[in-house]
Amino acid sequence: MHISLLLFDRITALDVIGPYEVLSRLPGASVHFVAKREGLVRTDQGLGLQADQRLQDVTRSDLLVVPGGFGTDAVAQDADVLAWLRQLHTTTTWTTSVCTGSHLLGAAGLLRGLEATTHWASLPRLLDYGARPVQRRVVEQGKLVTAAGVSAGIDMALTVAARIAGPDVAQAIQLAIEYDPAPPFAAGSPDKAPAHLVELVRARSLAARTARR
Amino acid sequence: MHISLLLFDRITALDVIGPYEVLSRLPGASVHFVAKREGLVRTDQGLGLQADQRLQDVTRSDLLVVPGGFGTDAVAQDADVLAWLRQLHTTTTWTTSVCTGSHLLGAAGLLRGLEATTHWASLPRLLDYGARPVQRRVVEQGKLVTAAGVSAGIDMALTVAARIAGPDVAQAIQLAIEYDPAPPFAAGSPDKAPAHLVELVRARSLAARTARR
Repeated sequence: MHISLLLFDRITALDVIGPYEVLSRLPGASVHFVAKREGLVRTDQGLGLQADQRLQDVTRSDLLVVPGGFGTDAVAQDADVLAWLRQLHTTTTWTTSVCTGSHLLGAAGLLRGLEATTHWASLPRLLDYGARPVQRRVVEQGKLVTAAGVSAGIDMALTVAARIAGPDVAQAIQLAIEYDPAPPFAAGSPDKAPAHLVELVRARSLAARTARR
Repeated sequence: MHISLLLFDRITALDVIGPYEVLSRLPGASVHFVAKREGLVRTDQGLGLQADQRLQDVTRSDLLVVPGGFGTDAVAQDADVLAWLRQLHTTTTWTTSVCTGSHLLGAAGLLRGLEATTHWASLPRLLDYGARPVQRRVVEQGKLVTAAGVSAGIDMALTVAARIAGPDVAQAIQLAIEYDPAPPFAAGSPDKAPAHLVELVRARSLAARTARR
């Protein structure tokens, strides 16, 4: 089970670490962090994550994870990354994304005519890629599985883990990472959070997207 | 708001990235990854995380996060790290842990007489440090806040974020990371998961602890 996780600058750390923590525990998993260049990428809050392989080192994979973050706007313009996504997708059993990672799949032309999801604040932009935006935690379209924002990658990965290895293995992983969530507030989606906070986060998200560091 | 997150080899990535993703979004947050040596540490599943500062570079911090992982057994024997934890704790407003990170706080002598939690499979071992083990998602004892296994660090960090900056800020962060969890199974704690999986995960956890790579 060869698993590739794409890294790039201004990635959101939890987008990639959530699925990593689940999928790396699958029996026989071999996990590969792949970026344009070998070495450190910096997340959108400054943490350094190490890419051990370059795009050209990875020509096939059973499972691809494409995370999001404010860096996706730049990566969506990068023909090398988009070509790699398209090529790898022809070899995968599962092609997945978290948060605005689905915009990269879209920019690579892989979402045309399909239902897909992303971070709630950037859902309408999926229309630009010919996808059909759906506000749901995890959206499955055959081998293509997209997740909502940031933390949704954990739920997506458990869903895919169950498809790959069965419900017992997925539940054992859930228990190992003690994923019995108990957030102190019920503000995790725009239909549950107070309206003034929805507007605040939407405005900040737009500001961060347009601030090209 | 100076935030220090401890890194070490064989750390569990999500233990540290969950709190990081929440706390780094606090207004005025300045986030520091600290390890015995500057450079890469490797998580227990192989990912490289970059430590930008050494223990001796960080002599005070408003908030300390001590993550867990199978590497904690080795770190609990490291007098330099334990001395650093003790010293930094005298300067913090909040001292926190995730998963078996609480065993490091315990080994440093910081949990004596206090209620504390950790990963469910290693809860009884907290007695070794004079702590009172409690199976709860987040345990608050004044400025000392411990979380249950791996993913519980997200709930802990949102709890602490609310104490620091108020419920509006905490909820805005929850919304920004779209933390509206919807796991496909209800197997995230030993009282909910099927009994045979509880025994399987407990046995594996013990095996991984004793396999000293």
